[in-house]
Amino acid sequence: MTDARSLDAIINARSLAVVGASEKPMKFGSLFLRSQLEFGFKGKIYPVNPGEREIFGLPSYPSLSDLPEAPDLVYIAIPAHRALGVLEECASLGVKGVVILASGFREAGPEGMELERRALELSRRGGFRIIGPNCFGIYNPRSGLALLPGHDFSREEGPLAFISQSGGYAAHVGRLGKDLGLGFRAIVSYGNACDVDEADLLDYFGGDTGTSAVACYLEGTRDGRRLFRVLKDVASRKPVVIWKVGKTEASARAVASHTGSLAGSPWLWKGILRQCGVAESRGVEETCGILSIIQHLGPNPGKRILFVGGGGGLGTWAADLAGEVGLVLPALQPETEERLRALLGYPGAAVGNPLDMGTPAVRPELFWEILLAAAPDPGVEVVVFDMAVNFAYDLVGEGVREMASHLAEVAEATRKAFIAVLYNRATGPDDLERERLLRELRSFLHGKGIPTFTGMGEALNCLARANQFHRLPNASQGK
Amino acid sequence: MTDARSLDAIINARSLAVVGASEKPMKFGSLFLRSQLEFGFKGKIYPVNPGEREIFGLPSYPSLSDLPEAPDLVYIAIPAHRALGVLEECASLGVKGVVILASGFREAGPEGMELERRALELSRRGGFRIIGPNCFGIYNPRSGLALLPGHDFSREEGPLAFISQSGGYAAHVGRLGKDLGLGFRAIVSYGNACDVDEADLLDYFGGDTGTSAVACYLEGTRDGRRLFRVLKDVASRKPVVIWKVGKTEASARAVASHTGSLAGSPWLWKGILRQCGVAESRGVEETCGILSIIQHLGPNPGKRILFVGGGGGLGTWAADLAGEVGLVLPALQPETEERLRALLGYPGAAVGNPLDMGTPAVRPELFWEILLAAAPDPGVEVVVFDMAVNFAYDLVGEGVREMASHLAEVAEATRKAFIAVLYNRATGPDDLERERLLRELRSFLHGKGIPTFTGMGEALNCLARANQFHRLPNASQGK
Repeated sequence: MTDARSLDAIINARSLAVVGASEKPMKFGSLFLRSQLEFGFKGKIYPVNPGEREIFGLPSYPSLSDLPEAPDLVYIAIPAHRALGVLEECASLGVKGVVILASGFREAGPEGMELERRALELSRRGGFRIIGPNCFGIYNPRSGLALLPGHDFSREEGPLAFISQSGGYAAHVGRLGKDLGLGFRAIVSYGNACDVDEADLLDYFGGDTGTSAVACYLEGTRDGRRLFRVLKDVASRKPVVIWKVGKTEASARAVASHTGSLAGSPWLWKGILRQCGVAESRGVEETCGILSIIQHLGPNPGKRILFVGGGGGLGTWAADLAGEVGLVLPALQPETEERLRALLGYPGAAVGNPLDMGTPAVRPELFWEILLAAAPDPGVEVVVFDMAVNFAYDLVGEGVREMASHLAEVAEATRKAFIAVLYNRATGPDDLERERLLRELRSFLHGKGIPTFTGMGEALNCLARANQFHRLPNASQGK
Repeated sequence: MTDARSLDAIINARSLAVVGASEKPMKFGSLFLRSQLEFGFKGKIYPVNPGEREIFGLPSYPSLSDLPEAPDLVYIAIPAHRALGVLEECASLGVKGVVILASGFREAGPEGMELERRALELSRRGGFRIIGPNCFGIYNPRSGLALLPGHDFSREEGPLAFISQSGGYAAHVGRLGKDLGLGFRAIVSYGNACDVDEADLLDYFGGDTGTSAVACYLEGTRDGRRLFRVLKDVASRKPVVIWKVGKTEASARAVASHTGSLAGSPWLWKGILRQCGVAESRGVEETCGILSIIQHLGPNPGKRILFVGGGGGLGTWAADLAGEVGLVLPALQPETEERLRALLGYPGAAVGNPLDMGTPAVRPELFWEILLAAAPDPGVEVVVFDMAVNFAYDLVGEGVREMASHLAEVAEATRKAFIAVLYNRATGPDDLERERLLRELRSFLHGKGIPTFTGMGEALNCLARANQFHRLPNASQGK
């Protein structure tokens, strides 16, 4: 059974010891410690290494028993076969939690499995919980706790939780999420789940009032019934996004050698996720994209989109992609079309949905008028705007910044959900200035609550998936 | 019937007149002319505008009849309703071809359709062919002929042809293709196809010895039987990639208002493309990605991949994605596994397929040894290497450049097909130096004949599609 308090003490730990701390490059104990120092953990850090007196300027202790206090959290950054001795110390000291970073446990065969069994025994005896083994730790911007590779994560707090059986993807989602404007409550890499597992963590973040949505990268589970119960429960209160891997023979094989999990039937999983009202993700970008829509627009923003772009091909493609994922481009109301005809009378433009401005960029004032005429259409739930920034820049120069401002203004004024698809078709080493402009536009829009994507397919696909929370109300109902 | 010579004279034109030439920003006649001047057309350019004496430093002529010679190609950059008068002049002067840039024809309704009918009549009478109307022209790096927005396209010639009913996508594919190392024979934006249509162009590039593969963005056709015959014929000799849009009610509506085409049943199209042995694309990135694999690795490089990455999650995801698109990760030969076990004995690494190096980057010499041990496995046709450049850089710094060099060396030494998936999870305005590194790596690899992608899903999907040329032999058979 989950004990929310025990996980709370781990995730919000105020002191931590690092067993196996080191300054040697490429060592877990060095990489992990550097992450904490660069990211800026706000509590106490105690490096433990009998062979050192000082590590990165901090005094090093010979053993856990030599610390001035029992730390909330002990990170074990030494190889698997030496972990049990440390856990015995933890049991006698009364620490609250342990994170085992090393691999070499269940996923490595029978000996590793026996190590995990004994680790779990010690945790029960000592009354502490274990995260891992074979994981990258915890990211918590409030306390400044960093993942193993996480020195450059966002320092801003937010409402999203991500839990991941893969340490790598904990890092990928955290780092990519930063530049999508995602704000995290926490990211927990939980690896082999010898003790704390996906159901414990889902349950914990499901009950945490600071968390408004939870996503999870999942390789397998050891208690499907319990996970099903927890998913159903949490998904009736907040959006849950699950990325379940291991769908093929080769990937199931990879799952076993990665975290020692059983992948299970992909069809069974698909059915369970649907039944629970959980959105299914299929990758890092998709997970971040769905979370970005949830954070900025709320769950279930709607399926009826208005597509606005410059070029006839663009709209045609958008309509194709929308159809593939079950989104709809409704015909506009006659009044909307009339307002637009007064603005889009010039050659190349086409009034309708998709709405074709004719060129990748128009005069910013005209853009503002077009948006203001189109967005309020009562049949439209989400406005999707597409712009190839390099071509737009060639036409209106810095005017693209004004276009972005107008987009944000109209989104605010009309209280409609907006999504911006912004990309460069110029991607060479010499085109970095255009890339800088694109990134500044994206960052600006995130600050205004507008999610951005760099591909139309990604945007529409993530929007469709962010509409799958059938146990939750629609975002627009709250407006 | 297609007359290859007449298209040849247009695509390789050595002199061109621009009717409606102008210096006014945002005008077709100005944008087009600037493209030619910046890109550097090698033949003669004659601006035609009775109201000007000089345009961008070139003497302007009052009318076509005032030119010192009959130009090979006349670009009509004035509005639709004034185009017929110019075509009458063309008919009497004996020009070889005309490109009509303006929209306002078939796609605009019955009047526009009548304009097209009369334009076609004049072309028959004058013995010239028309490209367009409603198009962006022709890109030909040999002669320096540029698309309407195409001043910064690649100046290097290559073996690929792209023909596009959308002017915008002619520009998108050309510009994106440049930075993927694609070399084009030509790109033709053919718009409404009042005269020269997709079948003419496919047939032309099918017979052109300088063209080794043809891709096409298609909204609809007016002669399905002829197109079917041409596709079948060309696809038995060289790879053909078709991106057919208009699959939903909304996109069929968009197709009609864009180029006045009938989209036709998506299922019928799917069947026809399969039967012809044509690869089906679904977007700009996909079209460029498939072309990149064809250009660098040849058609049908193989379905049996070895996935190499750093992180257990990565390989699991890759195996899932591969399974979705019908690629296979075969188990490695015992000899290969033995060689690898000697190198990958450290914690976190896993010998097998997917092959997990444990971290996003390893020492470059070790990387070289791993590749050299794994790539020759006789069951493997394509090696797919994945690296998050930002994380790799954090670990080995400039060592990532050496890793890229080793990748190219091993590809050359083993004569195996390699694909590199390189991306950054750091995508903010402050992370441009890492973006520069990524782009330099990509550019380097393209030069070594290794296609690169920025997403694993894209890479595997494009590889699967580049294996659909069932009327052509496998790439590996030639080695």
